[in-house]
Amino acid sequence: MTEPRFTFGLWTVGNPGRDPFGDPTRAPVDPVESVRRLAELGAWGVSLHDNDLVPYGTAAAEAERIVARFERALSEAGLGVGMATCNLFGHPAFKDGAFTSNDRAVRRAAIGKALRAIDLGARLDAEVFVFWGGREGSEVGAAKDPRDALERYREALDVLVEYSVAQGYRMRFAIEPKPNEPRGEIFLPTVGHALHFISTLARPELVGVNPEVAHETMAGLSFHHAVGQALWAGKLFHVDLNAQRIGRYDQDFRFGSEDLKEAFHLVRLLERSGYDGPRHFDAHAYRVEDAAGVWDFAAGCIRTYQALAERARAFDELPQVRDALAAASAPELGEPSVAAGEHPDALKAEADRLDTLAERGYYNERLDQLVIEVLLGLH
Amino acid sequence: MTEPRFTFGLWTVGNPGRDPFGDPTRAPVDPVESVRRLAELGAWGVSLHDNDLVPYGTAAAEAERIVARFERALSEAGLGVGMATCNLFGHPAFKDGAFTSNDRAVRRAAIGKALRAIDLGARLDAEVFVFWGGREGSEVGAAKDPRDALERYREALDVLVEYSVAQGYRMRFAIEPKPNEPRGEIFLPTVGHALHFISTLARPELVGVNPEVAHETMAGLSFHHAVGQALWAGKLFHVDLNAQRIGRYDQDFRFGSEDLKEAFHLVRLLERSGYDGPRHFDAHAYRVEDAAGVWDFAAGCIRTYQALAERARAFDELPQVRDALAAASAPELGEPSVAAGEHPDALKAEADRLDTLAERGYYNERLDQLVIEVLLGLH
Amino acid sequence: MTEPRFTFGLWTVGNPGRDPFGDPTRAPVDPVESVRRLAELGAWGVSLHDNDLVPYGTAAAEAERIVARFERALSEAGLGVGMATCNLFGHPAFKDGAFTSNDRAVRRAAIGKALRAIDLGARLDAEVFVFWGGREGSEVGAAKDPRDALERYREALDVLVEYSVAQGYRMRFAIEPKPNEPRGEIFLPTVGHALHFISTLARPELVGVNPEVAHETMAGLSFHHAVGQALWAGKLFHVDLNAQRIGRYDQDFRFGSEDLKEAFHLVRLLERSGYDGPRHFDAHAYRVEDAAGVWDFAAGCIRTYQALAERARAFDELPQVRDALAAASAPELGEPSVAAGEHPDALKAEADRLDTLAERGYYNERLDQLVIEVLLGLH
Amino acid sequence: MTEPRFTFGLWTVGNPGRDPFGDPTRAPVDPVESVRRLAELGAWGVSLHDNDLVPYGTAAAEAERIVARFERALSEAGLGVGMATCNLFGHPAFKDGAFTSNDRAVRRAAIGKALRAIDLGARLDAEVFVFWGGREGSEVGAAKDPRDALERYREALDVLVEYSVAQGYRMRFAIEPKPNEPRGEIFLPTVGHALHFISTLARPELVGVNPEVAHETMAGLSFHHAVGQALWAGKLFHVDLNAQRIGRYDQDFRFGSEDLKEAFHLVRLLERSGYDGPRHFDAHAYRVEDAAGVWDFAAGCIRTYQALAERARAFDELPQVRDALAAASAPELGEPSVAAGEHPDALKAEADRLDTLAERGYYNERLDQLVIEVLLGLH
Repeated sequence: MTEPRFTFGLWTVGNPGRDPFGDPTRAPVDPVESVRRLAELGAWGVSLHDNDLVPYGTAAAEAERIVARFERALSEAGLGVGMATCNLFGHPAFKDGAFTSNDRAVRRAAIGKALRAIDLGARLDAEVFVFWGGREGSEVGAAKDPRDALERYREALDVLVEYSVAQGYRMRFAIEPKPNEPRGEIFLPTVGHALHFISTLARPELVGVNPEVAHETMAGLSFHHAVGQALWAGKLFHVDLNAQRIGRYDQDFRFGSEDLKEAFHLVRLLERSGYDGPRHFDAHAYRVEDAAGVWDFAAGCIRTYQALAERARAFDELPQVRDALAAASAPELGEPSVAAGEHPDALKAEADRLDTLAERGYYNERLDQLVIEVLLGLH
Repeated sequence: MTEPRFTFGLWTVGNPGRDPFGDPTRAPVDPVESVRRLAELGAWGVSLHDNDLVPYGTAAAEAERIVARFERALSEAGLGVGMATCNLFGHPAFKDGAFTSNDRAVRRAAIGKALRAIDLGARLDAEVFVFWGGREGSEVGAAKDPRDALERYREALDVLVEYSVAQGYRMRFAIEPKPNEPRGEIFLPTVGHALHFISTLARPELVGVNPEVAHETMAGLSFHHAVGQALWAGKLFHVDLNAQRIGRYDQDFRFGSEDLKEAFHLVRLLERSGYDGPRHFDAHAYRVEDAAGVWDFAAGCIRTYQALAERARAFDELPQVRDALAAASAPELGEPSVAAGEHPDALKAEADRLDTLAERGYYNERLDQLVIEVLLGLH
Repeated sequence: MTEPRFTFGLWTVGNPGRDPFGDPTRAPVDPVESVRRLAELGAWGVSLHDNDLVPYGTAAAEAERIVARFERALSEAGLGVGMATCNLFGHPAFKDGAFTSNDRAVRRAAIGKALRAIDLGARLDAEVFVFWGGREGSEVGAAKDPRDALERYREALDVLVEYSVAQGYRMRFAIEPKPNEPRGEIFLPTVGHALHFISTLARPELVGVNPEVAHETMAGLSFHHAVGQALWAGKLFHVDLNAQRIGRYDQDFRFGSEDLKEAFHLVRLLERSGYDGPRHFDAHAYRVEDAAGVWDFAAGCIRTYQALAERARAFDELPQVRDALAAASAPELGEPSVAAGEHPDALKAEADRLDTLAERGYYNERLDQLVIEVLLGLH
Repeated sequence: MTEPRFTFGLWTVGNPGRDPFGDPTRAPVDPVESVRRLAELGAWGVSLHDNDLVPYGTAAAEAERIVARFERALSEAGLGVGMATCNLFGHPAFKDGAFTSNDRAVRRAAIGKALRAIDLGARLDAEVFVFWGGREGSEVGAAKDPRDALERYREALDVLVEYSVAQGYRMRFAIEPKPNEPRGEIFLPTVGHALHFISTLARPELVGVNPEVAHETMAGLSFHHAVGQALWAGKLFHVDLNAQRIGRYDQDFRFGSEDLKEAFHLVRLLERSGYDGPRHFDAHAYRVEDAAGVWDFAAGCIRTYQALAERARAFDELPQVRDALAAASAPELGEPSVAAGEHPDALKAEADRLDTLAERGYYNERLDQLVIEVLLGLH
C-alpha cells in the first residue's frame, strides 16, 4: 500500500474565521505561505478555487504574475495540485445560482468563468476539477422547476467537459453534492443524486463524485455508505474530509473531530479500496483560533487520519475480529445468492424455511464492540 | 387532464395502531371490508404486500380461497390494484436484511418469496411491483461492506425482473428508498441513490422509483425536488403520499397534514407533469383513532389532495402569479444557456460582467407570498 | 381584542444578504429610512441592537447625534421601540463567548457593553431588553465546564438586571435561546433551559423568555408547545416570528413561509392567550432580493400573521370544530384529575379499568383535517 | 472515588427485538434469569417498570408470588434496585396520554397505576422513581392546549410525590424528558423543560431529572451540557446511558457505540461531579442478536464506560492537557467576572477594549485534538 497523499484547500488554512454572525478573527494568509507551511506538515499538495489565488477582477498581467509566483512556490515546496475548482458562489451575481440561475446571462457568465478556471486547473496540472453547486438551488419552490434546473445543469457540465476534452486536458471532473446551505434546497443534494446525474451526461466516463463528510452528514446519511456506492460505481474521483454533526449548519470541523467510528469506517474503506486520489481536507480551524491555531488544526487532520489508518490495519489483523466477522457471516455477503441457471422454483421453495432461518444470531454487538475497543486502544 | 386515481395500501387503513412502545389500539380489518369502504370513498384501487392478503405460512388451498375472495371483492367494488409488493421485513428471518442479508440462505429465501409475490401481483394485474428494502442496511458498519451489499441487491433485482419478463408479465418495477428505520442505515437511502442504482441494472428500462414523502423528508430533503429528478429521468413509476416532520421516526401521517407548502409544490408538479400512475396513500390513522377514525383519515387524504390540486390550478391562472414568475425569470430557466456551436471565448468574456449581473432582484418573496396566500384561500 | 402590534428589527429589513459563502447582495439601509418604510407598512415599532444604530467605536458626540436623529424619526413616524438588545456576537473579541468567554477580561467588557446598551434601551423607552447568547457556547467540550459557564451566565444577568433596577429603568428582560450556530453547542439551547435558568436568578420576576420560531425549530421542537410552556409560566415577555425548516442552518425566513400549520397554532395560541407584547419579526428577505424585494418581504410577514389570526378566529367559530374538539375531549383537559381530599385507594382502583378505557377513539384525524381545511380556505 | 454502580433495566436485557416493521426475534427473558446474569457481569443492580415484573392484570396472589420470588433472586445475587417506574405507555388506554390524556378517567387510572408502582418501588427499596411521559404529547396541535396539559402534569406529580411523603417512603423522583416518539410532540421535550417544570412543583426538592443520552441526542442537543445544567441545579437524580444518532427514531444502542467523544465528555463529567447514583443502561441489543448476543451487549456497555472513565483520568493527568487547558483559559471560567461592589462605570469603560481583546487565540484545536488522541490510545 502506498502512502496516502494529503491535500488541503487554500481556503481551508486561509479561512479568516468569519461566520454569519461575526466578523473575521484572522488575517488573510498568502497562498505562498500556505504552500510553505503545508509542505512542512507533510502534505502532498494543495487545492484551490480560481479566486483563492487570483481575486475576481484581477487584470491579466497581474493574474499572470500571481500564478507564476504560485507555481514557483509549489515547485520549491515540492507540492502538487490535487484539485482545482471555480468559485461560482461568492459573487452576488450568483445569488440565484450559477449554471441554474434563472437569468440566462448569469448562466453564461458562470460557464465562462468555469471555462477559465478549467484552463487554470490544467495549467497547474490539477488531477481533478470539482463542481460544487452550492448556489444551484432555491428557497422558493415556485421559482424553479427542478426539471428545468437539472436540464441546465446537465447542459453546463456537458459544455465544460467537452471543452476540456477539446483542449486536450487530462483532468477528470467530480461533482460535490450538498443538501442545503447556502440555499434552502440544493439540486443534487446527495452522492446518490449526483451519481445518477452523471449517468445522464454526454461523457459520463470523465465525471465522478467528490463526496464530503460534512455534506452527507448534514442530511444524516452514512458517509461511508455514500463512499461505498461511489466506489462500487467506479466513481470516487476525489474525497473531502472534515467533520460535522447531523442536522446542523455546515461545520467543516477538523477531520475526525466528530463521529470517530464513522471516520474509522471511512478510512478503513478508503485504505482497502485501492482509491489512490488525494485525501483532501476541506475543513477549517475553529473561529476561536488565532493564526498559530490554524496549524494545530492542519496537523490534527493528518495525524488523526494516520492514526485511524493504523487502527484499521490493527482491527483487520485481530483474530477476534476475524472470528466476529465470521460469526456475522460478513464474508458470505461477497458470494452470489443465486447460481447461474437456477430454476425459480428452487428459490421459491426456500421461502418456506423462514422460521428456521430466523433462529441464528449475527453477533454484531460483539463486532461493533471490537471496533470501539480498537478505537480506544484496548487491542 | 384526467382525474387522479387514488389508491390506498391494505396495510394503511388496516393499520392496527401498534408502535414501539404500545400495543395495538384497533382490531385487524378484513381486506374485503377495506375494499368496500375505499370504493365508497372514491378510491380507484388498492395496493398490497403478499402477506397483507395471505398470511405467511398459509397452505396453498387456503391461500387460493383468500385470493379468489379478494378478486371477487375487487370486481364487485370496481377497484383495481395499483401496486403489489413483497413483505421482506416482518419475519424475524429478515432481521439482517433480505436481498442483502449476510446469510446466503436468507437471501435465497427472500428472492424466492419475492418471486411468489410477483406471481401474485401479476395475477391481480398490479401495474407496478415495488421493492422497499427496509431491512437492507445495518446498524454496524463493520458487518457489511456496502459494495458487497449493493452487488447482492443488484443481483436480486436482476433475477427478479428477468423472471417477470420470462413469465410475460407486464408489470413494471419501482424501488422505494428510505434513509433509516428500521435499520440504523439503509442502502439506497434516497431517490438519488435509487436512480443511480437503477442505471446499473440489466434491464433499467423496466425499473423506476417509488418516492415516499415521509422517507425523503426524514433526511430533510425536498420531496418535490426528488420527484422532479425522477420525472426528469423518466423514472417516476409510482409515488407514496403521506406526511412527516423532518428528523423523526417514520410517521406516515395523513397526506397534507404536515408541510402544506411542500405538499402544494408536489401536487402542482404531479398534476403538471403528465404522471398518470396512482396517487398512492401510504399512511395510517393516528394511534388515538378507533375504527371509525380510520375512515376520517382516508377521506382526509383524498380531500386534501383534491383541494391542493384545485389550489395549484388557481395559482397558475392568477395574473399576479404570472407576473411574479416573470419577475423571477422562472420561464427563462427553460431556455438553453449556450447556443449550438458557440465559441468558448464568447462565454469566457461574459464572465467579466458579474458586477452588472448582480444588480437585479429575483422577486422570490413576492412569488412565495403568493403561494402562501393562494394556500390560505386569499386569491 | 386589541390589534396586534407588529415590530421589525432594524437588522431585519436592513439585512444586506451576506451569507457564509457569499458577499452582500444589498446595500446597507439607513435606520431612519427603515423607520419611515415600516410606518408605511403599518408596523407599530422597531427593535434594535446597540450597533444597528450606533456602530461600535463611534465617538460620544457622533453617537448622540445619531441617537437624537433616530428619536426624531421615530417620533415623526409615530413608531415605538418594542425591544432593545446588545450585539455581543459580531466583534471578534466575542469569538469565545461574551458573558461566558473563558477570558475574564472579555466577560467584563461584555457586561460593560450590555450596561451601555441597557442605557440606550431605556432612553428609547424599549419595553423589553433581550439577551441572545449566540456566542455563549463551544465547539469543544473540554474547553468549558458547562457548570462554570452557567454560573458566569447567571452572574452577568444578575449584575445587569440589578443595574437596571438601580437606575430606575422600567424595562423587563428576556432570554432568547438557540441550540447551535454560530457555536457548535450553545448554552440555554431551548426555551425550557432558559425558563429553568431564569428560576435561578436573583430577580426572576423581571426576566422572561423571547422564543424564536427558527431556534426551537432547528432542534425539531414544537414552537407552539414552547410558547405554551412560557405562557403557562407567565414568562412570555417577547416573541420572535420567522420561519425555518428543521435541522438546518438558521434561516430566518419570512413569517409563515414554512410549516403553515405550526404557524397557525402559534398565532391561535398568541391571540387567545392575552399576550399583549410586540409580534416581532426577526427575519430577513431571501438573499436573491434587491432593495425593493425587502419590502415585499416585510409586507408578507404582516399579511400572513393577519390572515392566520383571521383563520384562527374562523376555526374557533365553526360548529364542526366545536364538535370535533368535544369528540377529542379537548375541553376536558382543563378539568382537574383529582378532587380535593380524594383517597389514594380510589385512584388505585381505577387502574383496573384500562381495558374499558382503551375502547374509545379521540377523533384527532377529524380535528386536524378541519385545521387543514380552514387553512385552505374551505370553511 | 468510589466505583461506579452499574444498573440495567429488566426491559433492556429482556428486550425481544420487536420493531415497528418486524416481529420479535428473541424469546422473553425471565427477570430472575436477568438478575443472575447481570450479577455475573458485575452489575450493581437492576431497574424495572411495574409490568416488567408483574404483567398488567395479574391477580393479587400471583403478583405477590412473583414479587417475592424476585426479591429472593435479588438477595441471592446481591443486587439492588436502582430505579423503579410505571409503565404508562404500553396499554392502549394510554394512547392519548396518561397524566395528560384528554379523558379524565384515563388520567385518574394513570395516577392510580403510578401510586401502585410507587408502592412496589418502595417495597423493593428503589432509590429513585422515574416518570417518563412517553405518551404525554400529541400529533395534533388543536387537540390539546399545552397550558392545560402542563397543569394536569403538575397536578399528577404533586399528588404522587405527596403520597410518597405521606407513606414515609424515602424515594426521590426523577422526570425523564424526550422530544418525540411515540408521540409526534412530547411535553417536557428536553432536560431544560423538565428542570423548569420541577421548579413549579409543590415539593421541588424531591424531584430531579433522569436525562437519557438518546433522548437529548434525538433533538441534536449536547448531552453533557444537559447533564451539566442538571448538576449545576443539583437535580441529577438518575441517568440513562445508551447511544443514538441525531435526528432518528429512538435507537437505544449500546452505551458508547455512537459519538465516542460526547460519551467521553459525559463520563468525564459524571466522574468528576461527585454524582453517586446509578450508571443506568437503558439500551438494548441490536435486533439481529440472538439470546447470547444480548450478553455481549450488556458486557460492552460496562466495558466501554470503564474504558472511558480510565481515558478521562488519563486525559486529566497529561501535562499537555493541562497546558492546553491553560492556553484555552478554561480554569479562568471558574472565576467571577465582577468583584463585589464594582462600579458599573468601570465595566462600561472596559467595553472600549474589544479590539485588543480580540487578538488572542484560545487553542481549542490543540485541546480537542488531545481528546481525540487520548481516545485513540495515543497518550
